[in-house]
Amino acid sequence: MDLLSIDSLSDEQIQQILDRALALHVRSGEGVGGLEGRIVFNLFYENSTRTLMSFATATHRLGAAAITMPVEQSSVSKGETLEDTARTLNAMRPDLLVMRHRENGAPAEVAGIMDAPVINAGDGTNEHPTQALLDAATIRHHFGRIDGLQVAICGDIRHSRVARSNAKLLPRLGAEVRLAGPPELMPDGAQRLSVDEAINDADVVMMLRVQRERLDQEFGDAPGEFLASYGLTADRCAQAKPNAMVMHPGPINRGVEIADAVADDPARSLITLQVAMGVAVRMACLEMLIA
Amino acid sequence: MDLLSIDSLSDEQIQQILDRALALHVRSGEGVGGLEGRIVFNLFYENSTRTLMSFATATHRLGAAAITMPVEQSSVSKGETLEDTARTLNAMRPDLLVMRHRENGAPAEVAGIMDAPVINAGDGTNEHPTQALLDAATIRHHFGRIDGLQVAICGDIRHSRVARSNAKLLPRLGAEVRLAGPPELMPDGAQRLSVDEAINDADVVMMLRVQRERLDQEFGDAPGEFLASYGLTADRCAQAKPNAMVMHPGPINRGVEIADAVADDPARSLITLQVAMGVAVRMACLEMLIA
Amino acid sequence: MDLLSIDSLSDEQIQQILDRALALHVRSGEGVGGLEGRIVFNLFYENSTRTLMSFATATHRLGAAAITMPVEQSSVSKGETLEDTARTLNAMRPDLLVMRHRENGAPAEVAGIMDAPVINAGDGTNEHPTQALLDAATIRHHFGRIDGLQVAICGDIRHSRVARSNAKLLPRLGAEVRLAGPPELMPDGAQRLSVDEAINDADVVMMLRVQRERLDQEFGDAPGEFLASYGLTADRCAQAKPNAMVMHPGPINRGVEIADAVADDPARSLITLQVAMGVAVRMACLEMLIA
Repeated sequence: MDLLSIDSLSDEQIQQILDRALALHVRSGEGVGGLEGRIVFNLFYENSTRTLMSFATATHRLGAAAITMPVEQSSVSKGETLEDTARTLNAMRPDLLVMRHRENGAPAEVAGIMDAPVINAGDGTNEHPTQALLDAATIRHHFGRIDGLQVAICGDIRHSRVARSNAKLLPRLGAEVRLAGPPELMPDGAQRLSVDEAINDADVVMMLRVQRERLDQEFGDAPGEFLASYGLTADRCAQAKPNAMVMHPGPINRGVEIADAVADDPARSLITLQVAMGVAVRMACLEMLIA
Repeated sequence: MDLLSIDSLSDEQIQQILDRALALHVRSGEGVGGLEGRIVFNLFYENSTRTLMSFATATHRLGAAAITMPVEQSSVSKGETLEDTARTLNAMRPDLLVMRHRENGAPAEVAGIMDAPVINAGDGTNEHPTQALLDAATIRHHFGRIDGLQVAICGDIRHSRVARSNAKLLPRLGAEVRLAGPPELMPDGAQRLSVDEAINDADVVMMLRVQRERLDQEFGDAPGEFLASYGLTADRCAQAKPNAMVMHPGPINRGVEIADAVADDPARSLITLQVAMGVAVRMACLEMLIA
Repeated sequence: MDLLSIDSLSDEQIQQILDRALALHVRSGEGVGGLEGRIVFNLFYENSTRTLMSFATATHRLGAAAITMPVEQSSVSKGETLEDTARTLNAMRPDLLVMRHRENGAPAEVAGIMDAPVINAGDGTNEHPTQALLDAATIRHHFGRIDGLQVAICGDIRHSRVARSNAKLLPRLGAEVRLAGPPELMPDGAQRLSVDEAINDADVVMMLRVQRERLDQEFGDAPGEFLASYGLTADRCAQAKPNAMVMHPGPINRGVEIADAVADDPARSLITLQVAMGVAVRMACLEMLIA
């Protein structure tokens, strides 16, 4: 079994991951074991701090070993095809492969070759299923439920694999998801809500990272203007429900998609809880896929 | 004891490594343990995916820890001599050092300083003994024997440490080795067989990687022409014995030294078996050298 | 408790670390265990071979897992603030963080956010407390005592965090420290001893690394002249006590701050003992801070 997309998971499997992650979170920081002698390969063709560190931490907490392929200095630069790299790694018989790639579908292509389970840790603009699972676990941990909540996801929806995976997962768990962002960053054919409309009366406001390169090219060099028009200011945040919470997959662009006052308000922000839940969710996924 | 060259090994040690590797291969993908608490340093001054991942996997399967020195950002760039680096690493008391370097003899120089065993994971155009051992294990696994087989090694013989180690190892195990390649890529004084002559009636055809830079400079930018003249096409492959098998140390240059139809023919190719056997052979070497 | 500076440690804690390090050194090369299931994050914003390898080796000898953040390809390049990186890493609940940074005080800033202990592995020109502790352990191991010894520290005192930490630690252990170097590399207001005066009758001569860039700019491209004026030649070394010993935090610049004849004299040099003691001291620090 692979975890390539939220669609890879049955409703039962989603519940099993969330239940287990919440149980593991209580024991956060503890070595749990259970996967001693197992080997997890990390194959990250795109930069990452938090995701790579999160998977490595989860792997070690379960007693398994993480081996990270040095992609920069790898056979990639010698012109090896992705299929041949996958065949090579498969022949080494890892117990699981975690993979990030800038092209949509690359982890699925690799999963077609690997005998071991593959977890998609983000592929292009397609999916990032463990991020959506950790977001769901975070919401459930804070609100005690997901069903019936209004979740606004705001920002660069068009290019966001986080938005895509959440837009699949959260409705399956009973939440209503509203997507909003600058018109040029919305998917073709999407409903055109303004950020203010999306946030209005929401229980959760999930802000997405805007790529600085995109900001420079398409919005001028004016982070403050982006914040004013589309970002989460304190004023805009006040339009949500009184007990609404703010989420962000990180790393945050302070003063661009989110104001400092919002990001740093402990009564409002679930951002660091998301990171903590990330380790727990990845532990739960590793357990399920390897066991 | 170090493993710097095929010459480092007695006939008994070679047999011991091959026997153990074949036994471990059956348990491929299992944690075996036995070296808990041991530390293996990886010191790779040249890029590598498969060799570094293979040694790391072997190390972890035995329960030991692999620590890879970040060479790019290391004291090398501060002008430290190789001898001083070796003295420093030796003082940290690793249980074994795996080393790759672009200069012939560099691992031997380091081994002269280290108290722990050193495995040469490839030095310049000199040797790559664990590659030859995994090639021998692969041949024995497939054919049930090595003695009496005809092995053609074709390509850039002049610069190939893989060819050099195999040309030492396989004859000690009873195989006949024929070397062939473009005249400018043959060692001085070597017999001048054509690739066709070498392959004719062979049991094993081992193709070597051609460096793309070398190809551009010496053969024009014409991979297809290299393939036609010196590479393993399906036609050329048919000149070997009916049940002949194809090997390659990887990563392969598709359409240069090997045609897709040959590389991807499961009835012909031992290439992924070589990778799997690589982990088993390195486990056997680590066990022998550390225990 | 954090280890950010020598000032972080009480006299009792210093003795405890030194006692434990000397006991562990006797068992050098052995796995000791005790921290199974624990996770140590390494966060190195500056290049390092020996310090990073030393901490990783210490971590594994204690049975814990080391996870090194790939800083080059990290969120740093996406403009994340150090505070936000610290909050993220903290949420993953490592058992300890080892950190090197080019800015004075950066580890203290991170320690203010982390719940886990932070070890400063070198911050700008400020401190490098585990280096001073390993220097003290090395002196005590060789001389049987530190109290009453004369220690000359020579070279680029102005920019040296090693000198700064040693100038705090060694006097607390009863040694007399004399600092000397080229006038332009001495701290403002420091006493102006010549290198010859500092070395005269010393028990220990600790030479510091001169940055090659600094050498080129400020002293012309004349390593030999620097050696003659300020470096440790055999002649200058002879001015110290007859049984005086030479130390250097490494990597050494041969022929710049130290002559080959001195660096390579086993009767004079404690340089590789310092490296060995580095692993033992870091094991002792990890044990104290995590337990």
